[in-house]
Amino acid sequence: MEEAKGGELKNILMAKFKEGTSESQIEQLIESFANLVNLVEPMKSFHWGKELSIEKEEEGYIHVFETTFESVEGMAEYAVHPAHHDFAKLFLPNLEKMCSIGYRLVRRRDGTGQDGTGRDGTEQRFRVMFGTSKMEQNGTGLND
Amino acid sequence: MEEAKGGELKNILMAKFKEGTSESQIEQLIESFANLVNLVEPMKSFHWGKELSIEKEEEGYIHVFETTFESVEGMAEYAVHPAHHDFAKLFLPNLEKMCSIGYRLVRRRDGTGQDGTGRDGTEQRFRVMFGTSKMEQNGTGLND
Repeated sequence: MEEAKGGELKNILMAKFKEGTSESQIEQLIESFANLVNLVEPMKSFHWGKELSIEKEEEGYIHVFETTFESVEGMAEYAVHPAHHDFAKLFLPNLEKMCSIGYRLVRRRDGTGQDGTGRDGTEQRFRVMFGTSKMEQNGTGLND
Repeated sequence: MEEAKGGELKNILMAKFKEGTSESQIEQLIESFANLVNLVEPMKSFHWGKELSIEKEEEGYIHVFETTFESVEGMAEYAVHPAHHDFAKLFLPNLEKMCSIGYRLVRRRDGTGQDGTGRDGTEQRFRVMFGTSKMEQNGTGLND
């Protein structure tokens, strides 16, 4: 699991569907997107979510699609795969805007301490960089 | 793990740093971002990545920051947390553009079959929706 998480190759696609796209159309498009896992060998997983409007900095994007791949070569294979192209022909005309970005995941911290960099007693291993100076001056900064 | 993955509360922040921001400044800002896991209780993990330029549809975004939270309330707590605000004061002036979106992750498919919806023999459980009609006509569609 450690290896699968650190170094994982991911793609995030953010989308806003055109006004007038029905919920059932969106549902079908998501189903088709998900089905690519069955059709494109190097595509390992598909997850999606819908914005929760907490910070209002989402630039109009509503849906987020996360996909993972076994290798950079696999991502390139997905990019030109006929099943992906067929899906894109149906998906893209329904979008008002989208943004898609592929990247290799770097794990930096988690609260579980599983990777040795978490909250459980390992804080001291990391220099407190600028950005937390106010906290250094005022104690924990949690009750400012 | 199943529960942590399906239903997980995430935030994706995409950013493009201003021209002239040095690699060491970016590194320090990422370190400060990562350190929020130690300062904001409901923030569970921090990961990041840098775009691989495979599909060229990233709208200028270069860095992707993934954070996870224990609850919607926790996300709201993070949004107004003083440590987050201190970090934002240093981070935001260095950005040319950003987009931040919070969402609840829905698992749809993975290739491992661990959630019962994967590639391993469970394809038939899902109707092939439109978007794969070409493949139905032409066989697998993999060699089109």
